[in-house]
Amino acid sequence: MQIVVTGGGGFIGRRLIAALLARDSLTGPDGRSQPIDRVIAFDKAVPSGTMPEDPRLMAVAGDIADPAALARLIGADTGLVFHLAAIVSGEAEANFDLGMAVNVDGTRALLEACRRLATPPRLVFASSVAVFGGGMPRVIRDDSALTPLTSYGTQKAIGEHLVNDYSRKGFLDGRALRLPTIVVRPGKPNKAASSFASGIIREPLTGQDCRCPVAPDSTMWILSPRRVVEAFLRAAELPGEAFGDSRSLTLPGLSATVAEMVEALRAVGGDAAVARIRFEPDPLIQRIVSGWPGWFEPERAVALGFAADPDIVSIVRAFAEDELGGAAAPAT
Amino acid sequence: MQIVVTGGGGFIGRRLIAALLARDSLTGPDGRSQPIDRVIAFDKAVPSGTMPEDPRLMAVAGDIADPAALARLIGADTGLVFHLAAIVSGEAEANFDLGMAVNVDGTRALLEACRRLATPPRLVFASSVAVFGGGMPRVIRDDSALTPLTSYGTQKAIGEHLVNDYSRKGFLDGRALRLPTIVVRPGKPNKAASSFASGIIREPLTGQDCRCPVAPDSTMWILSPRRVVEAFLRAAELPGEAFGDSRSLTLPGLSATVAEMVEALRAVGGDAAVARIRFEPDPLIQRIVSGWPGWFEPERAVALGFAADPDIVSIVRAFAEDELGGAAAPAT
Repeated sequence: MQIVVTGGGGFIGRRLIAALLARDSLTGPDGRSQPIDRVIAFDKAVPSGTMPEDPRLMAVAGDIADPAALARLIGADTGLVFHLAAIVSGEAEANFDLGMAVNVDGTRALLEACRRLATPPRLVFASSVAVFGGGMPRVIRDDSALTPLTSYGTQKAIGEHLVNDYSRKGFLDGRALRLPTIVVRPGKPNKAASSFASGIIREPLTGQDCRCPVAPDSTMWILSPRRVVEAFLRAAELPGEAFGDSRSLTLPGLSATVAEMVEALRAVGGDAAVARIRFEPDPLIQRIVSGWPGWFEPERAVALGFAADPDIVSIVRAFAEDELGGAAAPAT
Repeated sequence: MQIVVTGGGGFIGRRLIAALLARDSLTGPDGRSQPIDRVIAFDKAVPSGTMPEDPRLMAVAGDIADPAALARLIGADTGLVFHLAAIVSGEAEANFDLGMAVNVDGTRALLEACRRLATPPRLVFASSVAVFGGGMPRVIRDDSALTPLTSYGTQKAIGEHLVNDYSRKGFLDGRALRLPTIVVRPGKPNKAASSFASGIIREPLTGQDCRCPVAPDSTMWILSPRRVVEAFLRAAELPGEAFGDSRSLTLPGLSATVAEMVEALRAVGGDAAVARIRFEPDPLIQRIVSGWPGWFEPERAVALGFAADPDIVSIVRAFAEDELGGAAAPAT
């Protein structure tokens, strides 16, 4: 079986690819275990930097919204597609047309490429809790309406509807995971409005100052990179029937205020780490983040075996282990 | 002010146009009353048959998914657009690509044409209660999730998300009305899965036999043509702020079983009319109709002044008055 990962050069894509290559087989579209013959990392540029050394891994550069590129990418032996490629929230808000082209047209082009296969492949779509926002109940449940207040959230909601209908029609066997804010991302800040949520832990633990653009009581629904990769694999292996009428699942996470995240940082990096955070409100970021829901009851996903991290400190420690060799930078 | 009605050759489009032409002015995009200078009926063919005699009315034929046609249609003096053009439910289910082209790409092309205007026009989008379907609560509330079980419902849900985001971005001033099943439609059966709901009243009252493809206990959320035209005008004149975070409204209606509709027919047309109905179950139609919700609590729309018909008999009588000159065909 060939597995395609769009956005394979991104942070989650790389970790997902490493997790796939650590395995010999995975449940295929027929519900039986199949050997992982090839993993294709698809991204707009051939991923540079650390990718696993594995003869089964192939990198392909192309435009997700280009049907011809997708027709070459998705072939008869494609049994599973992870669709992670996206324009992130801040950029989709600033550049509406680019967001629509990649997040809507690109997703649709990918679904069309899958539809052309004789055996409908499984597809796992990375959606987001940003599909929620306006006029929300205090706690978001599985039957709460999608009410995005950003173009990114709107585009992800449209993607979910497409994945659901393509699955219902039998064009493919899709499932959409609404990702919490993933904390802690390594590397540099990106254009996601949530970028600070990783920054306020990552920068202090690597000896750098950072700014936090939102108030300490801002609440987010967060999940670690380890758990989200586990969730992608679990979603891929579940039978389509497990999803019932809706292929969309909100992933379990932790409801965390910025203040609680700062305290978790203190537990791992001490007061010196916390002292590196400077609160500098940014009204645009605050408005976007305040529009995201902070509390969910994702009963369906819990029943299907998806799990959150045990606590925020565990998330910070996992970052130190996975990305910093287990040690925070010395307090200076 | 110029007003464009897409799907202007359809049954509701024609009645809406007649209602517009019966007025001299309407609240424009700036919130002030503006004279109705021109009403353009846009449809895939120039509407034939009875259109009102009015020098302000112009008919334009074109493809709703053709950006060039829309660029010609939507001009600087366009202050209001009613978007009714759509592939109906049964046809969108049978021809997925046609439904996507018209209901998604056509809607998006229209929104893009509106976006190019210097003054964002108001736009009223005809959505449908078919956006609901799977895993529904017994009663659909304003905060219930959109869970379509048809491609038509999926495409309307996508249209709602686009109208909401284009409005939030200030590209236009949109509002989406989720139409109940409109009963009684005149003329011939169409390819909508709900076509029978009009047929079982219309055919007997005009002296024709008819078949009902669903069971008597099948429940629908229904509204008369008179009320839906009133709703379109009301939606057009409300200020955008009245909608809050969501531009989508479920219209008030009546929850009616097929059996109750048959009894309303009996009250107007007698036993002879009822005798013209033959129940012949069609599993495909039954499955689609069973997937539609039959009971709503559309509190937001009620608060904004939208109203249902008083009872089912009123709906049947209104049809006899509007389309049959007040008289049902003599019982034979």
